Amino acid sequence: MSEALRVGIAGLGTVGASVARVLAEKAAELTRQCGRSIAVTAVSARDRNRDRGVDLSGVEWFDDPVALAREAEIDVFVELMGGEDGPAKASVQAALERSCHVVTANKALLSRHGVSLALVAEKNGVLLNYEAAVAGGIPVIKTLREALAGNSVSRVFGILNGTCNYILTRMEAEGISFEECLADAQRLGYAEADPTFDIEGNDTAHKLSILTSLAFGTKISPDDIYLEGISNISQADIRAAAELGFRIKLLGVAQRTESGIEQRVHPTMVPTSSVIAQVHGVTNAVAIESDILGELLLSGPGAGGNATASAVIGDIADIAKSRPGFQHGPVFGRPAKELSAYKKAAIRKHEGGYFIRLTVHDRTGVFAAIAKRMAENEISLESIVQRAADPQTTDQKTVVLVTHETSEAAVRKAVDKITSDGHLVDKAQVIRIERAA
Amino acid sequence: MSEALRVGIAGLGTVGASVARVLAEKAAELTRQCGRSIAVTAVSARDRNRDRGVDLSGVEWFDDPVALAREAEIDVFVELMGGEDGPAKASVQAALERSCHVVTANKALLSRHGVSLALVAEKNGVLLNYEAAVAGGIPVIKTLREALAGNSVSRVFGILNGTCNYILTRMEAEGISFEECLADAQRLGYAEADPTFDIEGNDTAHKLSILTSLAFGTKISPDDIYLEGISNISQADIRAAAELGFRIKLLGVAQRTESGIEQRVHPTMVPTSSVIAQVHGVTNAVAIESDILGELLLSGPGAGGNATASAVIGDIADIAKSRPGFQHGPVFGRPAKELSAYKKAAIRKHEGGYFIRLTVHDRTGVFAAIAKRMAENEISLESIVQRAADPQTTDQKTVVLVTHETSEAAVRKAVDKITSDGHLVDKAQVIRIERAA
Repeated sequence: MSEALRVGIAGLGTVGASVARVLAEKAAELTRQCGRSIAVTAVSARDRNRDRGVDLSGVEWFDDPVALAREAEIDVFVELMGGEDGPAKASVQAALERSCHVVTANKALLSRHGVSLALVAEKNGVLLNYEAAVAGGIPVIKTLREALAGNSVSRVFGILNGTCNYILTRMEAEGISFEECLADAQRLGYAEADPTFDIEGNDTAHKLSILTSLAFGTKISPDDIYLEGISNISQADIRAAAELGFRIKLLGVAQRTESGIEQRVHPTMVPTSSVIAQVHGVTNAVAIESDILGELLLSGPGAGGNATASAVIGDIADIAKSRPGFQHGPVFGRPAKELSAYKKAAIRKHEGGYFIRLTVHDRTGVFAAIAKRMAENEISLESIVQRAADPQTTDQKTVVLVTHETSEAAVRKAVDKITSDGHLVDKAQVIRIERAA
Repeated sequence: MSEALRVGIAGLGTVGASVARVLAEKAAELTRQCGRSIAVTAVSARDRNRDRGVDLSGVEWFDDPVALAREAEIDVFVELMGGEDGPAKASVQAALERSCHVVTANKALLSRHGVSLALVAEKNGVLLNYEAAVAGGIPVIKTLREALAGNSVSRVFGILNGTCNYILTRMEAEGISFEECLADAQRLGYAEADPTFDIEGNDTAHKLSILTSLAFGTKISPDDIYLEGISNISQADIRAAAELGFRIKLLGVAQRTESGIEQRVHPTMVPTSSVIAQVHGVTNAVAIESDILGELLLSGPGAGGNATASAVIGDIADIAKSRPGFQHGPVFGRPAKELSAYKKAAIRKHEGGYFIRLTVHDRTGVFAAIAKRMAENEISLESIVQRAADPQTTDQKTVVLVTHETSEAAVRKAVDKITSDGHLVDKAQVIRIERAA
């Protein structure tokens, strides 16, 4: 039996406390699995007195996480504080620089500084593990980084934010408005008091940027992501989607195209019969399409103290199984210094199907005018539904169009023309369709 | 850069040829990912002259795979011949005994001899990797063995046989009989000329026995699996299932219970709204329930040369990233000598919901008699559907019962009584229901 793996944890919130507790409760089994014990020997947290459900009396306390990273006698530094800069960055950097392995759940940090941190880790021959940073407990990092070795990924997409999926699921199941769902989600603790970061897609974008790098071997590029949130999704969209065999999900999608790599986060129509359409509530899911394997889908708990802790502990266990002298696989699948530049594909060049919902004045010739604008832009239509917009308003109609594959530029031009033609009562609603098995 | 990892492949059928081809085509990317090149230096196959789409001219040929395992200058022995004994077993054993890493896709071999082979691998400090043996390209072994470290699994279940899922999917989609689907599957190459091994559940059982060991830390026990195939599933079952919100899948299920571990393979009712119900055609899926993470589901291609090759290459790449002196995690998650004895839970003790379809004589009092037998055995019913069995036969009725959670013993007693009461036209059809998210 080798010596114990010494772990320092910075941040004892929900996830940190859960990690410390599980490491204590499952000590015997983890020792059997790893061939050595795992011992928490140092921690850093604001409040020394809070009950975290685990005995931390023999553990060295640090007020400053950077001091912990720099000075504690540890083999692994576990960063669970969050934040893309500040103490999280400083402490991870310090740990890697003294050749200490790092495990983190911090998507913002990796999204912003992942490549520069990976360079330090790889120079010093230590691991930087971050399974918990994307899709919580779902082993998507391990899958992309290890299991898919030799595969060329063409597309990776997923439901990466539980708050949004919870809201969309309830909107569909109960027929209630976005605002009502959001208020409920806040009351139940599924959404923050300021939910902007979740519902506008920023959280999904952070996670997507990490998946993109792993999938395509490119530098992380979080500012090159096209972003649309879910706050303008209405019951009218959800009902029309259902009628046409679709369900609306907020997806993060990264896709290799002829003009570069698309990264986009937006509400998306997925076929109701697809596996990803059945991913309900706070559950996350990631689909990966690659040349050798084909399409793989992973779904599971994307957040929560225990699910996140599970991923953190898997990362720690991988380190416990390794020994000095072992040369690890690179942090982002290929060596950080060999990651290629990210070449952005503009959203206007996106090609795919579109769902277009128009509320129009009920006048003769409106439908013909819409059809003309579509034809002018060479957009062919897969289905068309026209009906009274609302039983109360007999002077309005709803027109829903589903297009065959076309370009974003064509759709925008057509919709702009239809808008300037003066037929619309409301702003046109345009939602991209994503093929999904 | 370290020296090349030297690979010997025994068996150049569909999978073996695909592995050799991908290793050649993706050589540069694999070298980047692993920090060293991977070179096929020895092969063994029956026919030296077949075109396998890859240049093997510089490679040492062996007629005898055991000689390859014993004598070739290789670091990894890749066994892709199949068969639970014979050359597959002899060559894997020989390779492990000379401290050569092994990668295999051979579920039958592992199901029968996995523990004894793991003992040799662990004694000699080499890896025995077998991602391709269960669910093809889906990284379920890596997930159970690595990602879920510290989790206690309570249940693992899945669609592990593409042939059966293809047949059940088409039976439902097209309303055609089992026999017709099977004939089609054979014509399309999805089913063997002798399909018994697939459709009677033996293939699923082999795979399940490996998952059970990984999930519960027990010795592999392939002969303790309750087995029912899909050959007696009829259109009447599929239609009744659909009406009640279920879909029929052949599942392998391993579950921890108070009386031991259940291992069972049988046609199963899963809720139509569950993710696993959307897994169609030859796709496989595995769900894992554990205490810390919660429920995880992985789905993807379960067979085919490339999908299987993808898993084999992932296993080889993991070895390429390791270096001498590295102590690996154990083959079945915990050291083979510490795997506990498998304690079988008898199928009669199984508890769950049941779907019972009865074709009865249309006589007064029959339904009351059935209800009485259920009540006598304390089986409470969630739903009951009664209708004419067939428009042509007015003297028969179909009764479909869905029970709340009850025991297998109670259901069997009740059905035996109903049968001996003389009301049934046909043998009762009993299908277990599985909770699935």
